[in-house]
Amino acid sequence: MQTELSKKLGVEHALFGFTPFPAVAAAISRAGGFGVLGAVRYTAPDDLKRDLDWVEEHVDGRPYGLDVVMPAKKVEGVTEADVEAMIPEKHRQFVADTLAKHGVPELAEGEASGWRITGWMEQVARSQLDVAFDYPIKILANALGSPPADVVHRAHDQGILVAALAGSARHARKHQEAGIDIVVAQGYEAGGHTGEIASMVLTPDIVDAVDPLPVLAAGGIGSGQQVAAALALGAQGAWLGSIWLTTTEAGLPSPLLVRKLLAAESGDTVRSRALTGKPARQLRTEWTDAWDDPDGPGALPMPLQGLLVADAVTRIQKYEVEPLLGTPVGQIVGRMTGERSVQAVVDDLTRGFEEAVDRINRIAGRS
Amino acid sequence: MQTELSKKLGVEHALFGFTPFPAVAAAISRAGGFGVLGAVRYTAPDDLKRDLDWVEEHVDGRPYGLDVVMPAKKVEGVTEADVEAMIPEKHRQFVADTLAKHGVPELAEGEASGWRITGWMEQVARSQLDVAFDYPIKILANALGSPPADVVHRAHDQGILVAALAGSARHARKHQEAGIDIVVAQGYEAGGHTGEIASMVLTPDIVDAVDPLPVLAAGGIGSGQQVAAALALGAQGAWLGSIWLTTTEAGLPSPLLVRKLLAAESGDTVRSRALTGKPARQLRTEWTDAWDDPDGPGALPMPLQGLLVADAVTRIQKYEVEPLLGTPVGQIVGRMTGERSVQAVVDDLTRGFEEAVDRINRIAGRS
Repeated sequence: MQTELSKKLGVEHALFGFTPFPAVAAAISRAGGFGVLGAVRYTAPDDLKRDLDWVEEHVDGRPYGLDVVMPAKKVEGVTEADVEAMIPEKHRQFVADTLAKHGVPELAEGEASGWRITGWMEQVARSQLDVAFDYPIKILANALGSPPADVVHRAHDQGILVAALAGSARHARKHQEAGIDIVVAQGYEAGGHTGEIASMVLTPDIVDAVDPLPVLAAGGIGSGQQVAAALALGAQGAWLGSIWLTTTEAGLPSPLLVRKLLAAESGDTVRSRALTGKPARQLRTEWTDAWDDPDGPGALPMPLQGLLVADAVTRIQKYEVEPLLGTPVGQIVGRMTGERSVQAVVDDLTRGFEEAVDRINRIAGRS
Repeated sequence: MQTELSKKLGVEHALFGFTPFPAVAAAISRAGGFGVLGAVRYTAPDDLKRDLDWVEEHVDGRPYGLDVVMPAKKVEGVTEADVEAMIPEKHRQFVADTLAKHGVPELAEGEASGWRITGWMEQVARSQLDVAFDYPIKILANALGSPPADVVHRAHDQGILVAALAGSARHARKHQEAGIDIVVAQGYEAGGHTGEIASMVLTPDIVDAVDPLPVLAAGGIGSGQQVAAALALGAQGAWLGSIWLTTTEAGLPSPLLVRKLLAAESGDTVRSRALTGKPARQLRTEWTDAWDDPDGPGALPMPLQGLLVADAVTRIQKYEVEPLLGTPVGQIVGRMTGERSVQAVVDDLTRGFEEAVDRINRIAGRS
């Protein structure tokens, strides 16, 4: 499964795997795909350095990339405390009430939230980048608009391709104007932040809009048939995120969350502002229902919502509060029915791709 | 482009075209696809008879089908007047106010609404079927659940395949249990009634759920690349609806509506309950915004909403009131950029399909 982009990157399969877990990223690259480590959860640069060192050691010399969440516009001098101060008391009370209703225990005194996902604040992303540029990453992806011009230039100076996620053709053209090298077309069915346009429509829209830039299709891809569909739509590769969540290498800390993911069907996700303030697809839970309830206070804009719910999400996860426990995941969650190794997933994707090619050739009368 | 189903039906291409226009249905079949005439707008059986006669005369002996909207459950003795009486005054007033705000003229005294789309009331659908069974239709499709058992039996007795639309695997399995022959997987991006699951995920879900029944993929298909993607996902054909709206044969009566369709981009549709009371994708307009506004009264359930807005929609269309003027259409509206003949559309689909097969073979290293 070779496209111009996969050849350029020197990988065996045009399969790009986004994951917050270093062990998964390394395993994807070792299996012949291209692992992309999500940096958003690293608030301390040293933690990112430690994990990139680990990836370097375990990737067997294969190429890999890094994904940051960096706003294009710099907001000077705004600290986490400034943002905290903008959160209305009504919303803090709603969090407290919702947690109390479900009997969610408090964190211990001084226990830090592992979910203070402030990585999309510009200064945090920059400290991540200062670390990342010391490593031989081949792709730097940004999940929130085009990266700032100086970051694009610095990446290009180091021979790093810059990728950016887009939910519409217009959005993709802006990336192209900003000098981005690869557009990731993030369809409605994808896990995490996503727009309204589904992959079947979005992928060719963006392929046409930014031609000749390579496009990766994201959203709705968890099988080799879906990889084949994405490539038929003109993508130069598939960008997969959700499918890795239930791999053995991911080792999600909550066994209950793994069970919920394995049991969920395609219709069990929702595109909600509950997690970050921007619409993001995730498991539908009583937590997302509470934020999406028209009679509730509703989610705050990014980055306020993320800060508001950080401790709450940590508590829900730590204590595995079943009705509230969720995670970002796409509609292909219905295909995630058992824990497998990353290698087994990649084998399944490549085998399914070949079967789909056989099928399409039969239909076209070419075999 | 031949699948088991297309061979069984004796058509050249596995392209199924749904349309409310007899001239389009006949042209699709003449071009080597399979035309399916939508019957929902025929409230008078004689009108349907007249148009089926016309199709028979213009189809050059090629196969075609009919699509009805028939609830599985019979509601005995409920008339249109009974349903009318259930509409709250508040909602009637909201219609009047919204039309007045935009200066929409009244219909002339005694002028009937052309949009009294009561075809999904069971007795209306039955009168359509009494007509349809006199014609050599090859497929009877139902857009609203499985048809009643007696209708399925009658169709099978006449050698007619029964198709039904589904928005989830569970929904599709119910069709299979009801003896349906073909499932149309209607993805989120489709025009008209649609669920939340996008085609990229829904198509393989339903293919797996109802195996070995043939599945047609609907939603997001307006190019040959998208046809190839649908077939790679396991469908036995593509079911296209929106793409025909701007064909020369459709001849939409409103030139302004045609211009709006040709100008619209992929993001310019919305899944709204405004038209029928069930979520249906359509052009986003100030009319859909009014019904989707959380501060408004909201849409009524089916079939009340359809009756409530029938005259209003007729007035908006007749007087071409720009901000309110819309139509059901899918996200591929962004691909509809010029009026073409049905033959030109079919040629474009088959050429694009062959190009996509070439491309996928290159990626697979088979050419």
